[in-house]
Amino acid sequence: MSASAPAVSTQGPVLVVGTGLLGTSLALALRAAGVEVQLSDTSPTSLALSRDMGAGQPRAVGMPEPALVVVATPPDVAGQVVVEALAVHPRAVVTDLASVKARVAQQVAASGADLSRYVGSHPMAGRERSGASAADADLFAGRPWVVVAGQAGAGCELVVRNLAVDVGATPVRMGAQEHDAAVAAVSHVPQLLSSLLAARLEELPEPALGLAGQGLRDMTRIAASDPRLWAAIIVGNAGPVAQLLRAVRADLDELVVGISPRAGRQEAGVVPEGASWAVSDLMRRGNAGQGRVPGKHGGAPRRYAEVQVLVPDSPGELGRLFSDAGRAGVNIEDLVMEHSAGQSVGLARLCVVPSAAKGLEEFLGQQGWRLVPV
Amino acid sequence: MSASAPAVSTQGPVLVVGTGLLGTSLALALRAAGVEVQLSDTSPTSLALSRDMGAGQPRAVGMPEPALVVVATPPDVAGQVVVEALAVHPRAVVTDLASVKARVAQQVAASGADLSRYVGSHPMAGRERSGASAADADLFAGRPWVVVAGQAGAGCELVVRNLAVDVGATPVRMGAQEHDAAVAAVSHVPQLLSSLLAARLEELPEPALGLAGQGLRDMTRIAASDPRLWAAIIVGNAGPVAQLLRAVRADLDELVVGISPRAGRQEAGVVPEGASWAVSDLMRRGNAGQGRVPGKHGGAPRRYAEVQVLVPDSPGELGRLFSDAGRAGVNIEDLVMEHSAGQSVGLARLCVVPSAAKGLEEFLGQQGWRLVPV
Repeated sequence: MSASAPAVSTQGPVLVVGTGLLGTSLALALRAAGVEVQLSDTSPTSLALSRDMGAGQPRAVGMPEPALVVVATPPDVAGQVVVEALAVHPRAVVTDLASVKARVAQQVAASGADLSRYVGSHPMAGRERSGASAADADLFAGRPWVVVAGQAGAGCELVVRNLAVDVGATPVRMGAQEHDAAVAAVSHVPQLLSSLLAARLEELPEPALGLAGQGLRDMTRIAASDPRLWAAIIVGNAGPVAQLLRAVRADLDELVVGISPRAGRQEAGVVPEGASWAVSDLMRRGNAGQGRVPGKHGGAPRRYAEVQVLVPDSPGELGRLFSDAGRAGVNIEDLVMEHSAGQSVGLARLCVVPSAAKGLEEFLGQQGWRLVPV
Repeated sequence: MSASAPAVSTQGPVLVVGTGLLGTSLALALRAAGVEVQLSDTSPTSLALSRDMGAGQPRAVGMPEPALVVVATPPDVAGQVVVEALAVHPRAVVTDLASVKARVAQQVAASGADLSRYVGSHPMAGRERSGASAADADLFAGRPWVVVAGQAGAGCELVVRNLAVDVGATPVRMGAQEHDAAVAAVSHVPQLLSSLLAARLEELPEPALGLAGQGLRDMTRIAASDPRLWAAIIVGNAGPVAQLLRAVRADLDELVVGISPRAGRQEAGVVPEGASWAVSDLMRRGNAGQGRVPGKHGGAPRRYAEVQVLVPDSPGELGRLFSDAGRAGVNIEDLVMEHSAGQSVGLARLCVVPSAAKGLEEFLGQQGWRLVPV
């Protein structure tokens, strides 16, 4: 969270419409930053819970007009609620937090509402659980927060940027279409491919699952996400998602044809001549794409060096390892634990800046750790 | 590694044919367990390097006959080398370590060789780098090691099982077809889907990549794997892989049709009525499949409780956290670090047994850690 005085509070109170996970988390973060928060929700239960958690006071007659209205409702009603807010609060800046932006912007524009005060936004934050009870003032800390470039003036945009900064997020300016295409690629399609893969495991024999390693665990982790929530997200961004899925399917078709035996030669199991190329070409493109995924803290992927250590599975061992790394003055940038069936020992892959790797290895070796060459 | 006396050594020396990553790692592990190892390779350079690393002595005239021959060559020549080994060493048990089993078994059977002494196997171990220089005696520690049920007798199978146990692996008995179908599902198809996804990122605009989070990083990690190695693996297991990919494609087709606007209504961007169901149905099947993926140490996925802590990005902070957890007497079963663009703070998600979560949270809170409610 920003240590400086909150910028939003200088403009007046903030009205949060929708007191679910995002709305209540935002309200709690604003309260912590000293901002006056008014709350509103169609559900009196949710509203009371949010108030009791210290998120602010339900908006009532006689309260000062909000300078900013934040619409934190489900995405399918966000457009309509934004239009109402623009009409009811004719001097307020209005934003919404829906995870899909073009559809909401279209709804608002179609209503003939005052677009000069509407700024769409999307904090890249969330969690598996929903509702006010899962709210957390730190939900936005360190996350990107997309501020949509629309027809509003720079002053209104700045109000929303300041909102993001006040709760610890990093504002990122984008067009609505650009945003929707981006989240289709970095969030929605990855989600669906994880589900497509995990769906194949529904009927896999138990012994086969026993051979699974970290690769499968990583590839299926997000397949545990909520079907109803995701159905709403995907339907709201169906165009960009379907377009990307068709491109994936074209590559998949090429791969399947490439490695399948030619018609009439099925029995012999003869793999066509180009099969090897079909696989390695796709893999090379995957290499290139993977290399562009930002690592920790965004930006270009930093190339960390790895130090690998065998860690016994008992309390405090991983702690002792990190302590020792700290004593060596080395910051562990990231950690991947690898485990396998039937053994109580894990492989810790410590990611450190390349210049620190050799010294860390030596130091850990002196402390009696069992190092595994990378 | 097993603390008990090695079982293989009681039978005589082991001949390792192929001194690359797997062969040299196995030889080093056997040497560490006190087993006499003979080495063989078509490349004198690789053979000398392996010997110099302490993996054993190159097989020479006058040496005792091996009790066990381990063929650790590339998969495309493994069948032929197994056949030769069965002929040259008429009393030895012969195994191979190729990652695809049905094809090797077919090649050996087609040669008319003595199948009563051949036991295929596959240690579920490896790494990105290859060659003897990347070898490591701990490569097999804690990993499953598939021992193929074929035409060999129980005594021969036991020799290969003992080999696995002696180097710290866990033997798992399977048929060759069963093995190939299993690795297609838990390893080969996940690899290809990761590559298919990552290939979509090749031309994604930079700002879109900046919105990526842990989900995309997890889904594309293995897309960094070696194209040539994987082309050989996929081609060697083309039948089971293509069959699974066709099933994935059928689900993908259904999804794309489900969320695409009907013909003629493209402009309006109207999503068909069943779109929401198409997504949530796939997601529910993914939920079910994901729930079957074994967690750490194999077996049914254990449901850990999560404790979430904000960790400043400076040397020793993660170490201090783990130290504190150790002082609380709690074993961290797994750790996921979440980071986001532009902020020097990370969210550590500590997985612990459910009974330990509350106590750990209280203790960490007392130590001044900033906890984030799960």
